[in-house]
Amino acid sequence: MKVGILGLGYVGIPLALRFNEVGCQVLGFDIDETKISALNNGRSYIEHIPSAEIDAMCSQGFEATSDFSRASEPDALIICVPTPLNKHREPDMSFVIGTTEKIAPYVRKGQTIALESTTYPGTTNEIIRPAVEQRGFEVGKDVFLVYSPEREDPGNKHFKTQTIPKVVGGATAECLKVGISIYEKVVDQIVPVSSTETAEMVKLLENIHRAVNIGLVNEMKILADKMGINIFEVINAAATKPFGFTAYYPGPGLGGHCIPIDPFYLTWKAREFGVNTRFIELAGEVNRGMPEWVLGKVISSLNERGQAINGAKILSLGIAYKKNVDDMRESPSVEVMELLRDWGADVAYSDPHVPVFPPTRQHSFDLSSVELTDENLSSYDCIVILTSHDRFDFDKIKQHGKLIIDTRGVYSDDAAHIVRA
Amino acid sequence: MKVGILGLGYVGIPLALRFNEVGCQVLGFDIDETKISALNNGRSYIEHIPSAEIDAMCSQGFEATSDFSRASEPDALIICVPTPLNKHREPDMSFVIGTTEKIAPYVRKGQTIALESTTYPGTTNEIIRPAVEQRGFEVGKDVFLVYSPEREDPGNKHFKTQTIPKVVGGATAECLKVGISIYEKVVDQIVPVSSTETAEMVKLLENIHRAVNIGLVNEMKILADKMGINIFEVINAAATKPFGFTAYYPGPGLGGHCIPIDPFYLTWKAREFGVNTRFIELAGEVNRGMPEWVLGKVISSLNERGQAINGAKILSLGIAYKKNVDDMRESPSVEVMELLRDWGADVAYSDPHVPVFPPTRQHSFDLSSVELTDENLSSYDCIVILTSHDRFDFDKIKQHGKLIIDTRGVYSDDAAHIVRA
Repeated sequence: MKVGILGLGYVGIPLALRFNEVGCQVLGFDIDETKISALNNGRSYIEHIPSAEIDAMCSQGFEATSDFSRASEPDALIICVPTPLNKHREPDMSFVIGTTEKIAPYVRKGQTIALESTTYPGTTNEIIRPAVEQRGFEVGKDVFLVYSPEREDPGNKHFKTQTIPKVVGGATAECLKVGISIYEKVVDQIVPVSSTETAEMVKLLENIHRAVNIGLVNEMKILADKMGINIFEVINAAATKPFGFTAYYPGPGLGGHCIPIDPFYLTWKAREFGVNTRFIELAGEVNRGMPEWVLGKVISSLNERGQAINGAKILSLGIAYKKNVDDMRESPSVEVMELLRDWGADVAYSDPHVPVFPPTRQHSFDLSSVELTDENLSSYDCIVILTSHDRFDFDKIKQHGKLIIDTRGVYSDDAAHIVRA
Repeated sequence: MKVGILGLGYVGIPLALRFNEVGCQVLGFDIDETKISALNNGRSYIEHIPSAEIDAMCSQGFEATSDFSRASEPDALIICVPTPLNKHREPDMSFVIGTTEKIAPYVRKGQTIALESTTYPGTTNEIIRPAVEQRGFEVGKDVFLVYSPEREDPGNKHFKTQTIPKVVGGATAECLKVGISIYEKVVDQIVPVSSTETAEMVKLLENIHRAVNIGLVNEMKILADKMGINIFEVINAAATKPFGFTAYYPGPGLGGHCIPIDPFYLTWKAREFGVNTRFIELAGEVNRGMPEWVLGKVISSLNERGQAINGAKILSLGIAYKKNVDDMRESPSVEVMELLRDWGADVAYSDPHVPVFPPTRQHSFDLSSVELTDENLSSYDCIVILTSHDRFDFDKIKQHGKLIIDTRGVYSDDAAHIVRA
């Protein structure tokens, strides 16, 4: 079987590797020539994926291309493109639509098209199906259409593509059958559901669940803080209940390409049905407010020491959106850094996973990661812990930092120079 | 050690049994003479606690009394009284205050007082401590004060008093030490926390977590219903994700003595700190709205069949608040039944755990449980499944029911006479 992976990022690459591993011929598609050339030269651009794996895949016939006319070659086309939000927090479907348009002229009889991008219920049937049918193909007979949400969790050491059960929904019963036959080659457990809409909803519910639970503990954190209660201690004690409770932890805001974004895909679609997704809205509001709350803690803590934030030397620890990864997408650390800068602080950062502050669409810092020597640590008026990478030496940071704002519950004691935020 | 248990209900009785089991002398206090006489005669009034256990405890010296002057006898006084809400959804502390006032004159040096009732952070220090100090005792020296939330889960077959880890917070470090020494006699794992306020908050967070997660899936259910998606299928598929997701299921509303009530204890206290607990409010609003939503499904489903609800014969299946128990506290089934009756339906019920509709403070139905014969089942215009007891024969119900409103996701297929609600 020949498999085409459309979109060679955090989702597409692991999937390509896995299909290659089981002996499929894999053809990768992307619009980014830099990525294509890197891959074709056996180089990885994702920290947790070693170049050796890419190289091995290349030697087994993997090829990356921007030539979408080759979309007729594979037996299965798997779409793994981004589904971000636009500036008005609405679904930005341009990558899904763009990819669909690019491959549509080359779709051929017998092919299967699978969408993996997280999206609102209805996408597969409303966007991809018409493009296929316009070519004169009958879905479920000539061409098979499935939706199967990616469940990648970069940095997760316990689960990988093969061992994460895969939800699959088909546009017809035949589509589902074909979809299962493809994915069961690479995934141990397939979870068939009754429609593509159901499969689309499954992924959204997973991430809505997280966004809402994190929103809840963030709200609880703000209250506990006013009550003089350590919310991390509360959560850890609650987590000893052997049923009915799952621990979620507060932080400086939501990050990553999923949790801050996906829920609003449902919000947008729900309007069509006259429904307000109130939990999603509330979670969004609370979680988006966290960087400002952290800023407030920095301001008030410096103020207690008779210092203004304007002109203060502040070190942000960790700019990746979660611990032990180099992924900076939607990182709340960057938002906190911008707020600090807007208030006149002299901002630096340290992150062992991100040696140089990368240029992003919305943010710009001309900075490199500061080395955490004793001297450096003691030279800042304030250190803000935003991402608790395991590589940080928190004892050392505690020892040499003058004032530490801890947004991750790293420190459980009540040292005078440590402020929970 | 002699232990006094104040409040002999769903929490107090299992605790008394457990202290008795490890060889402690147990003295039970209550204000309800019926309960006292039942216990002293070796009879249980709780379905899942066999009378034989009470009887055995009595023969080992257990005694129940309404004479609170005997509060000086035990070494430890453990308060397990109800903490309901009043009509304005504010904490009704009358049982805690009443018990405190009743025992205060008899508290003696060396005693430990432990509060187990779910309540807002601050209760132990604001209500019990002053009563003890007014007697001239120094807390942490003369008398020891702890808060240790009950985590009873009636009907749970996997965990019991002994095996559910117990959170303990002390008013002072010495109080905590003494509190641990008492509870470690009966519970395998003690989870010490830094204050009584923290311990109080732990229990609230546990139940807020549940209320919010159930609220979320209830909101998702309403949306999924409009989209033609089966939310139970979605949740079950999402639950195959081996990390980051925990399944909560929608239903006809919240029930029981904890989840619909406890969160508002925090809401009330939070106002003192100028904080709105928005997730709690939203969850409350959504969950309280579910009985009305179920009613709407009954109305529209009957209407589709050309029938008005007025005069329709409707059978409620399950009136306990959760499956396989006889507990009807705050049961949403009763609310649904009242709404149906208000709309003119001829309402009956069947519940193998509740043979006769018990009189409650707010509700009155002069009904007995209907036997689920084929004939009976087919005689109702509509059957509403509200509690999915394992003892129900759902195949039979499906076979003979004319119209079935399923609020518990019992049926996964799309039979024409079954309506998901």
